[in-house]
Amino acid sequence: MTIPAPLTGVVPPVCTPLTPDREVDVPSLLRLVDHLVGGGVHGLFVLGSSSEAAFLRDGQRRLVVESVVAHVAGQLPVLAGAIDMTTPRVLDHVAAVTAAGADAVVVTAPFYALTHPAEIARHYRLVAAASPVPVVAYDIPAAVHTKLPADVVLDLAAEGVLSGLKDSSGDLGGFREVVSGARNRSDIRGFSVLTGSELVVDAALAMGADGAVPGLANVDPHGYVRLDGLCRSGDWEGARGEQERLCGLFGMVRVGDSGRMGGSSSALGAFKAALHVRGVIDCPVTAEPQVPLSPDEVERVGKFLATAGLL
Amino acid sequence: MTIPAPLTGVVPPVCTPLTPDREVDVPSLLRLVDHLVGGGVHGLFVLGSSSEAAFLRDGQRRLVVESVVAHVAGQLPVLAGAIDMTTPRVLDHVAAVTAAGADAVVVTAPFYALTHPAEIARHYRLVAAASPVPVVAYDIPAAVHTKLPADVVLDLAAEGVLSGLKDSSGDLGGFREVVSGARNRSDIRGFSVLTGSELVVDAALAMGADGAVPGLANVDPHGYVRLDGLCRSGDWEGARGEQERLCGLFGMVRVGDSGRMGGSSSALGAFKAALHVRGVIDCPVTAEPQVPLSPDEVERVGKFLATAGLL
Amino acid sequence: MTIPAPLTGVVPPVCTPLTPDREVDVPSLLRLVDHLVGGGVHGLFVLGSSSEAAFLRDGQRRLVVESVVAHVAGQLPVLAGAIDMTTPRVLDHVAAVTAAGADAVVVTAPFYALTHPAEIARHYRLVAAASPVPVVAYDIPAAVHTKLPADVVLDLAAEGVLSGLKDSSGDLGGFREVVSGARNRSDIRGFSVLTGSELVVDAALAMGADGAVPGLANVDPHGYVRLDGLCRSGDWEGARGEQERLCGLFGMVRVGDSGRMGGSSSALGAFKAALHVRGVIDCPVTAEPQVPLSPDEVERVGKFLATAGLL
Amino acid sequence: MTIPAPLTGVVPPVCTPLTPDREVDVPSLLRLVDHLVGGGVHGLFVLGSSSEAAFLRDGQRRLVVESVVAHVAGQLPVLAGAIDMTTPRVLDHVAAVTAAGADAVVVTAPFYALTHPAEIARHYRLVAAASPVPVVAYDIPAAVHTKLPADVVLDLAAEGVLSGLKDSSGDLGGFREVVSGARNRSDIRGFSVLTGSELVVDAALAMGADGAVPGLANVDPHGYVRLDGLCRSGDWEGARGEQERLCGLFGMVRVGDSGRMGGSSSALGAFKAALHVRGVIDCPVTAEPQVPLSPDEVERVGKFLATAGLL
Repeated sequence: MTIPAPLTGVVPPVCTPLTPDREVDVPSLLRLVDHLVGGGVHGLFVLGSSSEAAFLRDGQRRLVVESVVAHVAGQLPVLAGAIDMTTPRVLDHVAAVTAAGADAVVVTAPFYALTHPAEIARHYRLVAAASPVPVVAYDIPAAVHTKLPADVVLDLAAEGVLSGLKDSSGDLGGFREVVSGARNRSDIRGFSVLTGSELVVDAALAMGADGAVPGLANVDPHGYVRLDGLCRSGDWEGARGEQERLCGLFGMVRVGDSGRMGGSSSALGAFKAALHVRGVIDCPVTAEPQVPLSPDEVERVGKFLATAGLL
Repeated sequence: MTIPAPLTGVVPPVCTPLTPDREVDVPSLLRLVDHLVGGGVHGLFVLGSSSEAAFLRDGQRRLVVESVVAHVAGQLPVLAGAIDMTTPRVLDHVAAVTAAGADAVVVTAPFYALTHPAEIARHYRLVAAASPVPVVAYDIPAAVHTKLPADVVLDLAAEGVLSGLKDSSGDLGGFREVVSGARNRSDIRGFSVLTGSELVVDAALAMGADGAVPGLANVDPHGYVRLDGLCRSGDWEGARGEQERLCGLFGMVRVGDSGRMGGSSSALGAFKAALHVRGVIDCPVTAEPQVPLSPDEVERVGKFLATAGLL
Repeated sequence: MTIPAPLTGVVPPVCTPLTPDREVDVPSLLRLVDHLVGGGVHGLFVLGSSSEAAFLRDGQRRLVVESVVAHVAGQLPVLAGAIDMTTPRVLDHVAAVTAAGADAVVVTAPFYALTHPAEIARHYRLVAAASPVPVVAYDIPAAVHTKLPADVVLDLAAEGVLSGLKDSSGDLGGFREVVSGARNRSDIRGFSVLTGSELVVDAALAMGADGAVPGLANVDPHGYVRLDGLCRSGDWEGARGEQERLCGLFGMVRVGDSGRMGGSSSALGAFKAALHVRGVIDCPVTAEPQVPLSPDEVERVGKFLATAGLL
Repeated sequence: MTIPAPLTGVVPPVCTPLTPDREVDVPSLLRLVDHLVGGGVHGLFVLGSSSEAAFLRDGQRRLVVESVVAHVAGQLPVLAGAIDMTTPRVLDHVAAVTAAGADAVVVTAPFYALTHPAEIARHYRLVAAASPVPVVAYDIPAAVHTKLPADVVLDLAAEGVLSGLKDSSGDLGGFREVVSGARNRSDIRGFSVLTGSELVVDAALAMGADGAVPGLANVDPHGYVRLDGLCRSGDWEGARGEQERLCGLFGMVRVGDSGRMGGSSSALGAFKAALHVRGVIDCPVTAEPQVPLSPDEVERVGKFLATAGLL
């Protein structure tokens, strides 16, 4: 399907359920998709950071896209990450995920080798030239150690290279610059500005963002859809209440924060534990080399669910 | 062939010559290998950072290993990088490069997702369990944004998980801790400690390092082999002179340092320009999205070669 | 005077005008204070980062506090930074600025030496024990290279050690955690949560923040006071418009962004140039070793003022 | 006294013993000076990072310089740190420590505010213009979050602004560039290149460095003086052995490395505990807000002393 321009609403980065031996658990994945679609989300983003794309083999990535695209059958747009270190490798992923049916690709700045704004622009131009579908920039400095400059993003939008931005930088000032530029510059049309920051979706939408890509929406899609609706109707007080409930729920990402594992193990482990506790997926295991949560930590995830009214 | 334990001497990370349309230029690659072997190097490391591994598609990576392994035909060991974000993806590269004939694999800490020493250890254990050849740890914080802790490396050496370390961290104090530990701990045998720091190879060898993996050895293998020999013979004054000549030559990595490109474009562009000027490779192009050197910058590379007596 | 608990509204970090030979220009400073008070601000913060506190000698710091406190004569609260590397040195500044009449002190985490959350808590406890006035924590990782953890701030608030937070971290998610904690924890009362992020004051107030400490309010106090009023009256659409006008004006901080100087020279140089152009201060010079703006850069500052309707 | 040009040998950064109520313990300080001078050191550096200069009030700093200068009475040169955030504040410290008799001042790049190479050069030019004694640059990125570029240092040396460099950056490649430049450039004479890296003093001297400023020399001055002598006599094998013994001893800096405190508390706490155990100083307390070592951690310091043959 053709992706809306701009894409609006809630577009969760879909977790990738795994079997105990760490293959993609397709039935659980499709149940998760049903859970999200049933929650009213407006699009799906597979193979993002919350999807453990960095941990999935090429065949697993392909299987995820094919399974989800076939299952949703055009009901809503499916964006797919093409996460790799540099242009040539990203191009291979773009070819793979679009062959599998993705409606748009989501691409970070180059990483591993030292990079530069001129190289970032060159990267996106080459990707867009080769991609049969729109390209969304993915700003995630915690992973790629480069911040996408707002002016680079806006200039590439004006050139027609980029069709949107997923901003997981946490820098709401820079985000606002892109939101304003996308609205005010006469050479930019239909550009989607999406926040990846779970904790400030209300603020991002109040600034004029088009939508949100919150990892936590895996656990509580209804909450984020409600939040989006409250913002669109101008009920900012109601939105704040809903957002604060979700902020409380987000505390689950720190259950493993005891020095025994890294932040990815803790956060993705908590999302999957919550999906398992809620009965959506069969097995809460995360990909290697992430450290699993302990039973006690999983129990604490359950308490977050209970407090947020999800049990 | 079985890799020596420890591996000693000069083991250049072999540049990957490309054609103008950025495919692997196999004839140039084999001429480069001949240039290195003719210079007396003691091993070859393909698919490292200086090889632009981060920029090579999977098929290109495979072609590099197959071509080099077939060409050297067991004359000297060929190590191959298996550079990717996480364990499952690294395992696929390990399978590919060992199928292509690599004698050892070189593996970084996980990157992109946040990691942790416990996850790094888990990563190397899983890689070693699946690898048919020895595993060398690759410490390169500038690329992966994590420093391998000396105690983690030494404990994994004692466990038999790691057979060596390539240290490109620039932290000679931490490097020394590994050198001393590898020599003094009774539970560690035959572990190779190799420096990737072009500018302090004499110091590293004086500390007891087994060898060096200098990117600049692509340009001047004879120089590094001479340096290695001087160190082994205890001629520290001669070694210092040779090292200082090489330090002067290394200045070429900054020819592009004018704000127009990143450090990778400048350094790898300079190495390839030098190999082109010296007549070793046909085309100095670097992989996308790196910015090419200007004619003026290439001319400055030539001056570095002249000053170092290589023209 | 006793500082309100919580302190609300707009509390600009007051620039420190200098004479051409870089002594404190007291008449200009008092004109600036009149400009701010006339603009309707709710408090003044002297000796903050925008005040160039890091560049002022002890005698100059004292002169600033004495001059401002005497001039405002209790009309509105005066907070003073006590910016130094560690507890003993901060304590001397606390003694000096409170002797000079400051109504509250604003204190960062320790810097220069490596620190730790336990040491940060110890630092604030010692400062509070010795301070005759309330202590506000100043979270400014760009300067001190440590982020104040939300739980440490909240626990120190509950202990009565901290009376407020000025958050210049740019991390609105963490900021929200403090806002919510300060409102919801029954053991915390009257704690002031203030944002230092010029570009998202509307969002911070919408989240429930008490006020803002925007450096740009030196240039346009009326704008920030208007913004604060619109937020308090629930006119979020009006607030957004005013905030966006201020975001446009804020672009002036980058006029020196050409590689010739650092970010502090550019931003503080622009604020002072704007105050000079607007006729508030006599001389736009910044403290050493900052690089001055060029005439062309100053002209661009003027264009930002014109666009924002301030000329 | 006039400082030698270049200054050579071992110049310890002298710890500052404190009384239980954290005033400077002058008798212990002078005993420590005697311990160092008796160990054969070639100069003293007071008010450096290992001296806890960042934690000392202005009056305490002055007392340290006056006490040490009076005590050594010209037997050997006394360098003093003038550690503060920016030029104007550094100038006040320069005036104070030179009035107190320092033979040279040691000055870092500006910190706290964002800086730039042009501002760093301006800073050193202003400091040198105002200083009655030679100025040594102090490169300590872990504290000031800027690396002094080798070319900036060398150009300032050629201008006569800087008379030396204390390099605590850990980057031996960059250090070597300064060593070589200082020796080979015809416009530079008598410039002192000193390493602050305890673990690689042998390597630094082998490269041609003039001397070392090792914090650990407080604990074992005889060892570092022996190491310096072995290097000067060209006994590199003997030097390596002595250096490795000192590397083992240096392990004490991690006794507090259990998550309970920061690196400064652990390292400086260990040095002071060792000096206390060795009977040199009366009280091992460190300045606030550092966390004290536990009895168990102090016991481990004792084991390091025993292993190194110092008990």
